[in-house]
Amino acid sequence: MITIGIDPGSTKIGFGVVEHDKSRARCLTYGTIINPGVNRAHDLKHTAQELSTLIKQYRPTLAVVERLFFTKNQKTAMVVAETRGVIILTLANHAVAIQELTPLQVKQAVAHYGQADKKQMQRMVQMILGLKEVIKPDDAADALALALCAVLHPF
Amino acid sequence: MITIGIDPGSTKIGFGVVEHDKSRARCLTYGTIINPGVNRAHDLKHTAQELSTLIKQYRPTLAVVERLFFTKNQKTAMVVAETRGVIILTLANHAVAIQELTPLQVKQAVAHYGQADKKQMQRMVQMILGLKEVIKPDDAADALALALCAVLHPF
Repeated sequence: MITIGIDPGSTKIGFGVVEHDKSRARCLTYGTIINPGVNRAHDLKHTAQELSTLIKQYRPTLAVVERLFFTKNQKTAMVVAETRGVIILTLANHAVAIQELTPLQVKQAVAHYGQADKKQMQRMVQMILGLKEVIKPDDAADALALALCAVLHPF
Repeated sequence: MITIGIDPGSTKIGFGVVEHDKSRARCLTYGTIINPGVNRAHDLKHTAQELSTLIKQYRPTLAVVERLFFTKNQKTAMVVAETRGVIILTLANHAVAIQELTPLQVKQAVAHYGQADKKQMQRMVQMILGLKEVIKPDDAADALALALCAVLHPF
């Protein structure tokens, strides 16, 4: 089974693709979609196109997308939500099943600890996937953690 | 020139299409896209499909979309922002130019008065477009007001 984890941001979207069965998980790819920031419409189109390319290449059957409940900066939150809308639409257009999880749920699933910090999370993800390198940037590590939730606690 | 006004909502999206030149504006159609509410992915796909159908039918060159800055209910705001993202993407995919306006800007443009209430706005829109019927529902009237901004104060 192939699962893609997606961490939506206003200009940067983390992604991580994991192939897994009941006993093993292997990282196929990870990285970030970086929008040029020319204008909103162009950025959203770029996000949809890049994500479509990833889906066609890796053919995930499930996507785990980070859900944001609230934040201090409402303007940023709105921009991220617009991006989330485009991500969910693109996944739906490719018939990829969608699971949404909060950062807390991801921390509990991957590190068994809701207060786990970024470094602890990164190390857990790196260990579970048997990666030699430190996963960079953070957005990609977050996305791999999201994908791993499907392996560690199948929905 | 043909302009579409769009009022994004969580489950209901108002639209209004206006044909205009420098001296006259005529209403081509108005109404609402109502999402079935089965699940988010399905709703966003439905929004994109219905909007695509409208764009193909009326071929607007400009879209005026309501911009929301903040609201008390942040959960609803996030859902509306997801819908906005899908609307902007769909417009961009059809090469429709996009203008975003706040409700205050629309009131000032159409009623020359930022404190205008729903009824006053509806009456102004009805009068400018020479419509006999009262425009219903509110979301469609709001969308026609957005489209009229392109006529009254060309960008």
